[in-house]
Amino acid sequence: MKFEIVRDELLDGLNDVMKAISSKVTIPILTGIKIEVNENGMSMIGSNSDITIRTFIPVERDGKELIKIEEKGSIILQARVFSEIIRKLPTNEVKINVTDGLQTLIQSGKSEFKLIGSNPDEYPVLPEVKDEHSFTLQSDLMKSIIRETVFAVSQQETRPILTGVHWTVEDGRLSCVATDSHRLARRLATPENMPSIPFSFVIPGKSLQEFNKILPDSNDPVEILISDQQVLFKINHVLFYSRLLEGNYPDTSRLIPEDHKTSIVVNGRALLQSIDRASLVAKEEQNNIVRFSTDEKMIEISSNSPEVGKVEELVEAVKVEGEELKISFSAKYMMDALRAIDGQDIEIQFTGAMRPFILKSVDSDSILQLILPVRTY
Amino acid sequence: MKFEIVRDELLDGLNDVMKAISSKVTIPILTGIKIEVNENGMSMIGSNSDITIRTFIPVERDGKELIKIEEKGSIILQARVFSEIIRKLPTNEVKINVTDGLQTLIQSGKSEFKLIGSNPDEYPVLPEVKDEHSFTLQSDLMKSIIRETVFAVSQQETRPILTGVHWTVEDGRLSCVATDSHRLARRLATPENMPSIPFSFVIPGKSLQEFNKILPDSNDPVEILISDQQVLFKINHVLFYSRLLEGNYPDTSRLIPEDHKTSIVVNGRALLQSIDRASLVAKEEQNNIVRFSTDEKMIEISSNSPEVGKVEELVEAVKVEGEELKISFSAKYMMDALRAIDGQDIEIQFTGAMRPFILKSVDSDSILQLILPVRTY
Repeated sequence: MKFEIVRDELLDGLNDVMKAISSKVTIPILTGIKIEVNENGMSMIGSNSDITIRTFIPVERDGKELIKIEEKGSIILQARVFSEIIRKLPTNEVKINVTDGLQTLIQSGKSEFKLIGSNPDEYPVLPEVKDEHSFTLQSDLMKSIIRETVFAVSQQETRPILTGVHWTVEDGRLSCVATDSHRLARRLATPENMPSIPFSFVIPGKSLQEFNKILPDSNDPVEILISDQQVLFKINHVLFYSRLLEGNYPDTSRLIPEDHKTSIVVNGRALLQSIDRASLVAKEEQNNIVRFSTDEKMIEISSNSPEVGKVEELVEAVKVEGEELKISFSAKYMMDALRAIDGQDIEIQFTGAMRPFILKSVDSDSILQLILPVRTY
Repeated sequence: MKFEIVRDELLDGLNDVMKAISSKVTIPILTGIKIEVNENGMSMIGSNSDITIRTFIPVERDGKELIKIEEKGSIILQARVFSEIIRKLPTNEVKINVTDGLQTLIQSGKSEFKLIGSNPDEYPVLPEVKDEHSFTLQSDLMKSIIRETVFAVSQQETRPILTGVHWTVEDGRLSCVATDSHRLARRLATPENMPSIPFSFVIPGKSLQEFNKILPDSNDPVEILISDQQVLFKINHVLFYSRLLEGNYPDTSRLIPEDHKTSIVVNGRALLQSIDRASLVAKEEQNNIVRFSTDEKMIEISSNSPEVGKVEELVEAVKVEGEELKISFSAKYMMDALRAIDGQDIEIQFTGAMRPFILKSVDSDSILQLILPVRTY
């Protein structure tokens, strides 16, 4: 293997692949990146066995030569050292040359590294994702979906299935649900050209968080291919593989109340800031609980800690309809939900102090956030 | 105590005082901030027993009213909660009112906190710094002195005196020295109006690092008062107290070689970048050691790790004079020293492979960095 490459391109690709590299892997070979060069370009693969990322740099783009290939081949190099070296090289031209056996020469300006590589045949083969189901989303929609749901997955491994986000395709509609059994986030979308056969799958929350870091804020298409145990996202020159969670995701549709007794419309940002302040007193206690009560026009948020003191916040509502209400809930869950809906006027629908309540934007039903209250009143 | 204050002013003061607050203090009262209001303004005091910071906000500045005082008084409030509350208040007007006993009402907009304060009489009295010795430095000079020396203090408590920077005033000159016994940093300065009586003191490195965060990048004067056990820095409305280290600082002047056998002039930034790259291979090993050798015009930096591989860097020297040299040293110490001298052309003077060598700017003798080599050649 012998080639010359533009450093900035190599660095961009490395930054993506490094998202899959973990120092905690138990398989030693996965501390390395597999590099492969053929007549079309250079690919790099990184993996932590849960997720695998493959990125590709073509020989040329828009008429500009990115790689000069003298000899095809492949090698595995230590991921951390390799990426730090590339980041710090003195010039934008890098020559990489596997010389004697596995010894890899990296040259740039008056800087010369000889790294000890590993045999590329030892690298695990890429998961095979049979094209059982597939559809396409725009990158920016995919980013919203992840941002609005993934925070609500369970952080505990007691019910592993709840550490993922449940994606369901049915009747041309996509539904994404996450719950840790104390709160739930649901995002609906109706992208074009959805498959007509219904199917569903559960993607680990951590995989989505890593994938989100790679996704551009653009309308580039993300192709999504699903087989039994794997999902594959394709975006531009990146392939992102994740294992899927096995098991049956609980039926969450019945959790969501259909009617309500109290409805409040309020500015999401104002409410978020008030809850944030109230939680300064609340968080010293175990459960970070705030109280919430309504009258005809105002919302009062309060919290009380024997050690720290008390707080009372008043927020003017746009509209209050239905029964008066006193309810208590986790300030953290409420803030997560309000951040997901992001600052617009929001509607909160309650069916009583001990029943789950929902939050959504007044403009759209696409995002729904549900929170279970706690008993304090 | 009852007053109204501009939130941004309060926040600026709090940000300074919070530098002294530590969650690790063993004296519970020091998790609080002491607030005191009199006819001149408001003061806040925070302390972790090593350092104490007092900041003062005057009733008015440049004709603008900052504080409206209704009633004088004092209170102690929990530092973390109080500063987070002030940071997140909804408006720029804050009313603070110690009502019933120690209960403290904080109001801003429609937000109302009742914090449980502590008795202000329980707060330790400020250290008394008798004006035994004093002088004045400009804030930006003080910042340079700290930046160029403090990194070289010892991180180990085996010889506590070496965890501080040794300041000596003699013959109108200020000398600041730090060493961890493997390397040494010395900064000389000749500020105006230095006292004629010689004296010296050792300031804990940690205190200087915290003080540096408060110092503005301006030529504002810093007044420095020293007594037996304490130093007091006065800058604008801030008083910064630190304990001094007790004991005799070792005589370091004899460590610094007076003559040399090899002298190299090189661009500091180019050398720093090369050493940084070489250390990528070196740092996998225990001691982060790189080799350094010269010929008539070039410097070669190399490192070798059985697991990772090899690196060779060539740096063009501006001038090489004297004997050829092969020497090894810690890449980290060298990078720290080069960062302190900061990018100018630097001169390195060697007296042999096993003798300490020094670095200084070609333009000035005010900064000197000394490093002990290690034996590998």
